[in-house]
Amino acid sequence: MIVLVIGTGLLGASAGLALVERGHEVYLRDASPHAAGLAEDLGAGRLPEGQITPDLVIVATPPDVAGDVVSAALTEFQDAIVTDVASVKEIVAAEVRTGRDRYVGSHPMAGRERSGATAADADLFVGRPWVIVPTDESSAQAVSLVRNLAISLGSLPVDMTASEHDAAVARVSHVPQLLSSLMAARLAEAPASALQLSGQGLRDVTRIAKSDPRLWSTIIAGNTEPVRDVLAELQADLTSLIAALESVDAGAGSYRGIATVAKVIDAGNEGVYRIPGKHGGAPVRYATLVVLVPDTAGELGRLFTDIGQIGVNIEDLTLEHSVNQPVGRAFLSVMPALARDLADSLGQRGWTVADTQAGEA
Amino acid sequence: MIVLVIGTGLLGASAGLALVERGHEVYLRDASPHAAGLAEDLGAGRLPEGQITPDLVIVATPPDVAGDVVSAALTEFQDAIVTDVASVKEIVAAEVRTGRDRYVGSHPMAGRERSGATAADADLFVGRPWVIVPTDESSAQAVSLVRNLAISLGSLPVDMTASEHDAAVARVSHVPQLLSSLMAARLAEAPASALQLSGQGLRDVTRIAKSDPRLWSTIIAGNTEPVRDVLAELQADLTSLIAALESVDAGAGSYRGIATVAKVIDAGNEGVYRIPGKHGGAPVRYATLVVLVPDTAGELGRLFTDIGQIGVNIEDLTLEHSVNQPVGRAFLSVMPALARDLADSLGQRGWTVADTQAGEA
Repeated sequence: MIVLVIGTGLLGASAGLALVERGHEVYLRDASPHAAGLAEDLGAGRLPEGQITPDLVIVATPPDVAGDVVSAALTEFQDAIVTDVASVKEIVAAEVRTGRDRYVGSHPMAGRERSGATAADADLFVGRPWVIVPTDESSAQAVSLVRNLAISLGSLPVDMTASEHDAAVARVSHVPQLLSSLMAARLAEAPASALQLSGQGLRDVTRIAKSDPRLWSTIIAGNTEPVRDVLAELQADLTSLIAALESVDAGAGSYRGIATVAKVIDAGNEGVYRIPGKHGGAPVRYATLVVLVPDTAGELGRLFTDIGQIGVNIEDLTLEHSVNQPVGRAFLSVMPALARDLADSLGQRGWTVADTQAGEA
Repeated sequence: MIVLVIGTGLLGASAGLALVERGHEVYLRDASPHAAGLAEDLGAGRLPEGQITPDLVIVATPPDVAGDVVSAALTEFQDAIVTDVASVKEIVAAEVRTGRDRYVGSHPMAGRERSGATAADADLFVGRPWVIVPTDESSAQAVSLVRNLAISLGSLPVDMTASEHDAAVARVSHVPQLLSSLMAARLAEAPASALQLSGQGLRDVTRIAKSDPRLWSTIIAGNTEPVRDVLAELQADLTSLIAALESVDAGAGSYRGIATVAKVIDAGNEGVYRIPGKHGGAPVRYATLVVLVPDTAGELGRLFTDIGQIGVNIEDLTLEHSVNQPVGRAFLSVMPALARDLADSLGQRGWTVADTQAGEA
């Protein structure tokens, strides 16, 4: 297959690398000759010399120009199927005027904190959902080609309409990003002594607040209505919560009004357990062991070696460090039935192990 | 030293275990004879038979009764220093009427997702900040004893007034908890197909939404004003953001109004980098390697073994699984200077390694 990748940033260059690996004839184009040359040097494809006749065009430009570039590609390559990989889909499809039967939108749920071709990885898409977004006019052949592209690059294709997609990513990606940023912004003027009390909860909630402002403002500006819908729901809940807190009368043995606060935490419990677990199954509650890890060189390596030798399958692992203290904690999630054996084996090897996950309070 | 621990849940039983280990004479008391007996069985201390004369009383009851219990202890034990470990401090101190010179509030920043004595751990406090909150009347001797308690149990004492403490935890703990819950609640009625697109960002933001409603509503009800202050700031920012989104005019090449969205992400960037790094130093930006891990038994163990043998100090490690695909990703954070060597060594051992951290977009 002859493929033209337009836009040789992270996604475009990664797709190019993966397609070259699979034996396709990949050409690269970018508004920046520097970026295109870099992607070629990395092995993501070749710069075309003269006319090409691609079977497939993958538009991997920023979302704010994707619609224009898709339209131009449909006109330039009258026999090609064209897809784009932008994070918003309605706004792109709306700009495609001609050749709509040959256009299928898509969105691989893959990315990195760093952008650009130098961050590219042929395995970027492996194991990630890849949303396939046909228009009403997309031909069956076009849909099939784009779905096969996703499968070929190791992704799981998920079919959605553009509005379903945009509503979904507003809720599970764009609004979480904005909330994380809004929370982190509340730390900007906090006293350093307050920040010293930061725990893992705050770190988790604000991790994605490190995201790139330019990329994210473009994504969110391309999806304003679905994002506003979810933000409006949140604002209503937040207003109710603030009002509820005004009516709480706590202290001196009285805790009136507390049920309204408990309801907020309850509702969160209900929602969070709907997030699918590993492999799309029902969320699983693993047992979590806590292992104290002295922060001296080699200790974490020794723990990893011991876990490797014990041979129990670890489902998840996170590390937590505390301020000004030379001991970290490793949280190992395992199937509940295996927890006792793992704890015993680690104990025998000299590790201090506790048997439940630490949170904050 | 003779210590009486009142309230033998997670914190009380953990303190008891740690103090017994250090050779102190520890007595236990709980409103529930079952809970007290359990803590005794676990080795956290003894149930008193007859009169005792403690040097120190540690009140580790839920925050809604801590003030009453502290007052009663100050009256019952006229020679004892009394501290409590509740997560809110003004509301407790306000209820202490007599013996205020012998009372010092405190708050170890330690906890777990599971509560109760069975989750107790003598090392629970190791490496955690422990806030010391004297009243104006607290004697120097009382402050010194409680500070030494924190140090003895492995914590880092941090001095604050009650209002400083309550404002700090509102911002770095209570509001992040509420935001995480509010976000997770927005998933309760989302279509399952939308949840299928969940990535690590959503999982991080909503992890603490799994917290216990009873515990957290009591904590927040005991700190309503500082929590409302921060929530009001957030609500103002959220209102501005929603208004800004209404004025965004995106599509057809126009992206007016986008700067207001970029500002939100920018402000988050600024705030998140104020969270202290490991050991209280300036936040460090580590290099992150991504290693693909086939999800078959033993693969993760093999990775751990290899990392252990390579001997590079890993600063942080998280695992990410994708829906319906048999490959996970391990994110290894290391000092930037070590990243290249680690990547090479892992590559030589057959691992697929990429050199930057994956986010979502």
